[in-house]
Amino acid sequence: MKRRSTAGMDCSIARALDVLGDSWTMLLVRDAMLGVGRFDDWIRRLGIPRATLSARLSRLVEHGVMSHALGGYRLTPKGRALLPVLVTLMQWGDAWQRDDPPPTHFVDESTGAAIEPVLVDRTTATPLAELRVRAVGPVTDDIR
Amino acid sequence: MKRRSTAGMDCSIARALDVLGDSWTMLLVRDAMLGVGRFDDWIRRLGIPRATLSARLSRLVEHGVMSHALGGYRLTPKGRALLPVLVTLMQWGDAWQRDDPPPTHFVDESTGAAIEPVLVDRTTATPLAELRVRAVGPVTDDIR
Repeated sequence: MKRRSTAGMDCSIARALDVLGDSWTMLLVRDAMLGVGRFDDWIRRLGIPRATLSARLSRLVEHGVMSHALGGYRLTPKGRALLPVLVTLMQWGDAWQRDDPPPTHFVDESTGAAIEPVLVDRTTATPLAELRVRAVGPVTDDIR
Repeated sequence: MKRRSTAGMDCSIARALDVLGDSWTMLLVRDAMLGVGRFDDWIRRLGIPRATLSARLSRLVEHGVMSHALGGYRLTPKGRALLPVLVTLMQWGDAWQRDDPPPTHFVDESTGAAIEPVLVDRTTATPLAELRVRAVGPVTDDIR
């Protein structure tokens, strides 16, 4: 059973999950960020069934996250804009889903310097983890 | 068909998706961030079937994302640590999955000031969107 349409749910998280609420989809986007774009490479890397891969890629193209051209699939700007989602997801997995050191880190392609992503408030540069953040909007209207 | 176990996949995104790769799960965590913790409130808000809700909540408790006590469910520290994932997911949905203004914004609970989350490099404070970020690790080893 699918959750009800997000038409009645004024929440961008819900709308984002209309595209992404699936492990395979996120892993396909992850691999595309790393440069994977060919059908057989995804199958080899992920062990994803062909029919599932085909369906997920079609869906990503339909939603404008990837484009399909000669030679394979590429992320569109909408797809590349998912980097912060993957980064924060990876950091959560690093911190809470493993005891060993994180396997992957980020570097600046130009300088080779390590990059340590952190979510901050743009104005004050305070990490969100140090703030008491409250969401305000229709999705919060009927809380308590 | 499930993707193969992440045991052979040294990637924290994959491990995170073992817990979260499901639209319902993310929406349950979203609502818990907003203060929802009772079974019937989730059903009312999301229209999620009871059996699905029950299964998802059990899974979140099992993975240490929520705890269950008298009166309902609460996010654990592991669960509250998902805030950056939800924030970046919301921002992506705001930017790419709607044409109307974003319905939800963030404020500092203490001061009421607007908070605009942005992912930056901790050392240089440069937004990731302005950097050329490259991932380095085993998950990238067999690329090209």
